[in-house]
Amino acid sequence: MYDLSINNIINRITKVDAKIVGIQFPDGLKTHATNMAREIEDKTDAEVIISADACFGACDTPDAKLIEFTDLLIHFGHTPLPLKYKTPVMFVEAYSQIDVKDSLNKALNLLKNYNDIGLATTTQHLHLLEEISDFLKVNNKNVVVSKGQSTRLGQVLGCNFSSIKNLDVDAYLFIGSGNFHPLGIKLFTNAPVVIADPYMAEARLIDDFADRILRIRFARIVKAREAKKWGILVSSKEGQYRMNLARNIKKSLIDLGFEAFIIMMENISPDNLLPYSDIDSFVVTACPRIAIDDSNMYKKPLITPQELEIVLNKRDWENYQLDEINFIDNQ
Amino acid sequence: MYDLSINNIINRITKVDAKIVGIQFPDGLKTHATNMAREIEDKTDAEVIISADACFGACDTPDAKLIEFTDLLIHFGHTPLPLKYKTPVMFVEAYSQIDVKDSLNKALNLLKNYNDIGLATTTQHLHLLEEISDFLKVNNKNVVVSKGQSTRLGQVLGCNFSSIKNLDVDAYLFIGSGNFHPLGIKLFTNAPVVIADPYMAEARLIDDFADRILRIRFARIVKAREAKKWGILVSSKEGQYRMNLARNIKKSLIDLGFEAFIIMMENISPDNLLPYSDIDSFVVTACPRIAIDDSNMYKKPLITPQELEIVLNKRDWENYQLDEINFIDNQ
Repeated sequence: MYDLSINNIINRITKVDAKIVGIQFPDGLKTHATNMAREIEDKTDAEVIISADACFGACDTPDAKLIEFTDLLIHFGHTPLPLKYKTPVMFVEAYSQIDVKDSLNKALNLLKNYNDIGLATTTQHLHLLEEISDFLKVNNKNVVVSKGQSTRLGQVLGCNFSSIKNLDVDAYLFIGSGNFHPLGIKLFTNAPVVIADPYMAEARLIDDFADRILRIRFARIVKAREAKKWGILVSSKEGQYRMNLARNIKKSLIDLGFEAFIIMMENISPDNLLPYSDIDSFVVTACPRIAIDDSNMYKKPLITPQELEIVLNKRDWENYQLDEINFIDNQ
Repeated sequence: MYDLSINNIINRITKVDAKIVGIQFPDGLKTHATNMAREIEDKTDAEVIISADACFGACDTPDAKLIEFTDLLIHFGHTPLPLKYKTPVMFVEAYSQIDVKDSLNKALNLLKNYNDIGLATTTQHLHLLEEISDFLKVNNKNVVVSKGQSTRLGQVLGCNFSSIKNLDVDAYLFIGSGNFHPLGIKLFTNAPVVIADPYMAEARLIDDFADRILRIRFARIVKAREAKKWGILVSSKEGQYRMNLARNIKKSLIDLGFEAFIIMMENISPDNLLPYSDIDSFVVTACPRIAIDDSNMYKKPLITPQELEIVLNKRDWENYQLDEINFIDNQ
């Protein structure tokens, strides 16, 4: 289902004469790990270490020990971010080989009243961008694609929507699975967003999902308004680490008379928060998707820094925004 | 229930003028974290960061990011190990305030046929060692207590039983909860082991539990004999990292015609191993307790390096030993 560019990998390992190679996959691609390790060890002199930690993005680089130990790290499935890595990292984009035509055809119908279309997708479909753009042009659409801060042409990340902001378009077309990325496009642009989902072989609008999420966010914000004791969550993952933001939030909460504690961990999970039952509400400075996507896994409200501004009456509900990490000044 | 020596902590922070202090607790003590943070911030100028990662021992030091960031790390509940830390670490032993007398009295009955008694306990009861020793002497026992490699007088760790090996005694008395530590004493000494368990207010022998565990280990070893494809698990935790051992194991398996892959992660868990469903059996070079204690959480056999020797006919079942980490030459 994915093309993992084995020849490029072998060439790179041979060229830099890497003795020890770390390989890291997002969870959906981890089943390829042993085959990849075998191929590399068969075709080069390198020894392979498979990283089995959770991996949700290029923000989520492997732990210090592995980087210390390897001459080259091969990270699959994500595009590079402007982070400093302690060892050379080769990013291998895993392009999905799923056919998008069926879902694109269905999307056309939902786009019939719009002329200027902003295009967005995730890493695994980036290689189809030109083909998709041509398809829309043939169907008399004007296509706008833009490069974001730390992202490629037409690419959105779960935490970075800079490529689709401020485009002069009538509607957006997102190609990919799930609702989170198009939700971000919707909330940042307030424009119509059509999803062409090749995995479901369908096209759909994001509106119902966006309404549902906003209702849940509103409920969390209302609940968080009762909080007296706050936990501010910081992740130690290189690309999710926003300690300065956390310290500013702590200071502003304490200045307002609240109790506030900075709590740091690698992976934020319900289990990891269980011992802090005395805390009423948590602000997540780590991955912006945690508060939104995993909301119903937590008993206490988990909210984003922007949602905290609403709680503290520093932002109006009408200016609701998703949290973003731009990787340039996030610390 | 625990005495966490707040005055010593305040004095140390003031003395070294620490600006940012990390605090880290094992899971059972994590509920103390916010109170401890508040006390430190009230009584010093330091800012506190609570580490919320899992923490099973002094082997399990907090991640690189936290250590980078803090002037002083306070680690609760464990005694120091001879590991290199990148920031000063203050180890605060959490002494249990539970009364041991009742369980000790019951233990006397089980020890009635033995004269020379080897004494062992875990960190949280170390402060009672002299009192327990006196109690046994008053009851006409000869008490032997010894210091281990990287452990205190009379102390055993889940992965280190050096303090009780080769003692010239008739039986052992272990004071504490659970069966794992006395199991280690039993398997390393083959002597009678009596548990005085103050939490259950009872005394018991370890034999039945040891028999049950050995039967399970035997089944795992038999199952692992069918394995063609091996995963060798390495933890990136400072005190559990045994990469050289893992590489030696990989080499010996490959030399015997097996497939073998080194898989590295911080916490070994069933979820983290799920994607490697093509692997038949795993050898754990991380915490020795994982294979033994968590055995039934895993579908595939997880075995220790010593158990692999039995699988490969390099060790007899009669010489079964638990795995140990002595922290001196473990890499």
